[in-house]
Parts: sequence; structure tokens; C-alpha cells
Amino acid sequence: MSLKIRLASIEDVPAIRALLADDELGQRREDLSENGLKHYETAFAAIAADARNRLYVALEGGRVVGTYQVTYIPYLSRGGNERAHIEAVRVASDRRGEGIGRAMMLHALDEAKARGCLMAQLTSDKSRKEAHRFYEDLGFTATHWGFKKTL
Amino acid sequence: MSLKIRLASIEDVPAIRALLADDELGQRREDLSENGLKHYETAFAAIAADARNRLYVALEGGRVVGTYQVTYIPYLSRGGNERAHIEAVRVASDRRGEGIGRAMMLHALDEAKARGCLMAQLTSDKSRKEAHRFYEDLGFTATHWGFKKTL
Repeated sequence: MSLKIRLASIEDVPAIRALLADDELGQRREDLSENGLKHYETAFAAIAADARNRLYVALEGGRVVGTYQVTYIPYLSRGGNERAHIEAVRVASDRRGEGIGRAMMLHALDEAKARGCLMAQLTSDKSRKEAHRFYEDLGFTATHWGFKKTL
Repeated sequence: MSLKIRLASIEDVPAIRALLADDELGQRREDLSENGLKHYETAFAAIAADARNRLYVALEGGRVVGTYQVTYIPYLSRGGNERAHIEAVRVASDRRGEGIGRAMMLHALDEAKARGCLMAQLTSDKSRKEAHRFYEDLGFTATHWGFKKTL
């Protein structure tokens, strides 16, 4: 089936929330209650209104089977340029291993190049070993440690 | 001497550029020519105009001795919130080990908390081993790999 990647709309938010919860790490931290949906919709509006943030969905037929977000971060370093910072990459658990993630990342890299970014970057939880091979196959190199601190 | 941390202004750009170039990794990639300055100034204007990006300098007397940048990234995940994404942390080579970096990171964490962020994150080149201990001492954990790809 052919895959379509487009900017997410407010109607996609329930499907994106379900994707974010659809893995081992995500299910512990997402709020899937009816009441919780409005927080996701408010967050979506903030992302959609920001010219340096883009949230995408991948569709097969009418079904949302993947999502990712990119933030274009303007830097002083290296003479000034934006970097494409990719996060929240998810593929529906029943559709993994079929090239959806790869298609989304190639889409992200194409968009970043078209925008003039000199670098794309992302972090991946150390426990997601399959994801690491996936990113290396796409030409990413794990040159850094990713540090997090809960506030 | 007392340290002051404030938002950077356009007049600080030459000093920030010098700090970015003032380490082993940075000296290979920064353009220190007079002609190159205008690219840094253009990049500074883009950062200063973006409500989700803040570039700070740390001053001792009138001298810029440190810098860091924070990008507040809006997310759908975890019910919607911004994360504080910290980059470009630098301290003047003759002033390292005296708490300037620590003061800047505590400043960043305070600002992020005040803004309602639930998480702060950063990546650090695997070769910067002293920086890793520094971030761990501040309560950061290296839970992720940081992947980069040149475009």
C-alpha cells in the first residue's frame, strides 16, 4: 500500500497520541483518557503555530501509521545555520519493519536539506537497540551522549 | 569576582564566536574572519527574534566568559509540555573549573522550571569526558545516544 507523509492536523491528534503510547517506553507516560486529550490538542496548537516546529504523520489509506516531529534550531555555531532536530519518531506496532520509519526519516532529511540545514540530529533511548541500527543505516552516527534531567 | 548571566545582545556576538572557537572541537569549525562575522550576526538576529530560543552570556566584570543557548521545544508527548533543549555551552579556556559552567546550567534549569518545562536535555560529544562528569554532577543522566548526520 502506498504511504503518504503530510503535516499533521488537529484531527490526527488522537491517532498520534495512540502511536506515542504504542511502545514499551511510551505506554508508561502517555495519558490516554478522554479528559487528557485536550492537553494533547493544546500542545498540537502550539507546535502548529511555530514556524520552526513541524509535526508529520504517515498514512496508509486513511490510517495514521507513523509520526515524527522536527524542530529547526537556529544556531550561532559554524557560521550560523539551522539544525534539524528530530524527535517523537513512532511507527504503529503492527506495521514495523516495513520501511515506514525509513520513509519518514528520508522525508525529514529531504526537507532539512531543502531548508538549508547543515545537520540533522536526534537522540534515541539506549534501550532501543533496533532503532540504533536503523539510524546508522540511514547514515547517522552516534557521536554524542544524550543527557536528560527531569525537572 | 561575581558572575552575571544575562541574555546576549548583538554586541556580544564577537565574544561568543571566540568562545565557540575556544576548544579542541570548535576551532576546526568556526569562521573567525572579519568577513565571517556578519553570518554570526544574522544568526544571532534569528535566535533573538524567536520566542522559543534564548542565547545567554555569563560576564565577569565586563568580560564574556561563558555562553549557552536554550531552545524550548513544544511536544505532544507526555500530555503536552515544552522541553528545555540546551546547546552550545562554552566557558573561556582560562576560566574553566571555577564554577562558571555550573552557574550557567543552574540558571538554565531554574529558567526551565519557571517556564513549566518537565525536562531538560542536552547532548555532549563522546570525547568530552570531563563534561560528562560535570552534567552527571548536575543531576543529568546519559540515558540516550545522540545521533548526528551531516547533510
